[in-house]
Amino acid sequence: MIVVKLGGAAGIEPAAFCSDIAGLVRSGERVVIVHGGSDATTQLADQLGHPAVFLTSPSGHTSRRTDRRTLEIFQMACRGLLNQKIVEELQRLNINAVGISGIDGRLWVGKRKDAIRAVENGVTRIIRDDFSGTVDTVNPAIINTLVAGGFVPVISPPALSTTGEPINIDADRAAAATAAALGASSLLLLSNVPGLLRSFPDESSLIREIKRPHFAQAEGYAQGRMKKKVLAATEAVIAGVTRAVIGDARGQSPVTRALAGEGTVFA
Amino acid sequence: MIVVKLGGAAGIEPAAFCSDIAGLVRSGERVVIVHGGSDATTQLADQLGHPAVFLTSPSGHTSRRTDRRTLEIFQMACRGLLNQKIVEELQRLNINAVGISGIDGRLWVGKRKDAIRAVENGVTRIIRDDFSGTVDTVNPAIINTLVAGGFVPVISPPALSTTGEPINIDADRAAAATAAALGASSLLLLSNVPGLLRSFPDESSLIREIKRPHFAQAEGYAQGRMKKKVLAATEAVIAGVTRAVIGDARGQSPVTRALAGEGTVFA
Repeated sequence: MIVVKLGGAAGIEPAAFCSDIAGLVRSGERVVIVHGGSDATTQLADQLGHPAVFLTSPSGHTSRRTDRRTLEIFQMACRGLLNQKIVEELQRLNINAVGISGIDGRLWVGKRKDAIRAVENGVTRIIRDDFSGTVDTVNPAIINTLVAGGFVPVISPPALSTTGEPINIDADRAAAATAAALGASSLLLLSNVPGLLRSFPDESSLIREIKRPHFAQAEGYAQGRMKKKVLAATEAVIAGVTRAVIGDARGQSPVTRALAGEGTVFA
Repeated sequence: MIVVKLGGAAGIEPAAFCSDIAGLVRSGERVVIVHGGSDATTQLADQLGHPAVFLTSPSGHTSRRTDRRTLEIFQMACRGLLNQKIVEELQRLNINAVGISGIDGRLWVGKRKDAIRAVENGVTRIIRDDFSGTVDTVNPAIINTLVAGGFVPVISPPALSTTGEPINIDADRAAAATAAALGASSLLLLSNVPGLLRSFPDESSLIREIKRPHFAQAEGYAQGRMKKKVLAATEAVIAGVTRAVIGDARGQSPVTRALAGEGTVFA
């Protein structure tokens, strides 16, 4: 089984992705899709007059400020629209896709953060009413049920908190935890970059392979959103996934290319 | 198995509904939930500056004008938000709910209308770019897979057209077709009315039971949205569902009350 995460950044079109997935499914590959919805959420937030705010943690990770209204906007854009566009596209290609979120079947459960620290102009603020957290438990029964029934699961955030609220989580790390829980052979993290770059944004500085002893070092090369992808890739391999690839979602056959090792391979 | 449709009109709160469903599931009943999202869609359409337009057909049925943008708004409000709020509520009650739409697993497939006729000030207009239609085929495999796996399906429109586009369909009639395809014993159509009234809006004029020979007559009592509910109830019984109940979603234990025959029973 392979788990493929499609990023939600601007400029990523699901058409080539879905066409590639359809070919793999027809060839007998068992595929689980996870997707984000960052750009769609930001667009809808603008349209609704509740613009997106991004926070930077003291360790340099960025995350979306998720108040109650942002959580709803996220669910509408990501779960309501983007997830269903991927399902619709796959169905047009005769692939029997089913969209679920992390709260359906309690797939992704985790702790909602009591407080998050955000650095702004050098000052650290504490935010207490955020609906975000991390996935601590993956309950793969819903995925296994769907796959056994011949369906291709298309999974969207949010996750479910231990107290029963939807929480915004990092979809790359959730995909990694899911790949580990399913005993998947490969985790592919596809977005609008060719992989991990030694000198961002110089695409010719692509790092082709990172072996386990160098995982800690790899995070040092990453900037912004890429930090979470590197964390996700290394977490997956440490948890037993044979290899994780950070690859390019743009262009034709993005899944097949990543499966063939194009991008940055963690093993 | 019972199929319960929860209406999407203003003033319907899912809390009492979900609590009642939880009790039934715990007692061993196999339940499939279908829901609408009319009010939530209208609210979001207003917020996005694309206000809802309703059309009246020459036969007196009303339907939402569904251009491409309205379809997206509908998917965001109904599939993205309302469906997931029901799932979230059921999960909090320890019921392992899974939200799907009519396009997931090709559950509801039907023909998109080439043209719809709308009467306005006595003049009939033809509209050709509407994304609406009817459910002609129910593929119950996704429901049977979920139910066999111990999950409670929560189903949201839209449906999938035969040419692969999402289409707005009537959720009451889709619930009726689903109940028939599943061989369900009961179809419950719950909304913000006590049932079919002989003299709308006089609630004391509730019709308690309508037997099959009087089905055609029943439609004559219905006004507005109720016309579709009566059509759905009669279609379900004619297709083999033992009985259909148009009942009240308001107040405590709305599902148990309808199951006990409170409302208008079609048999």
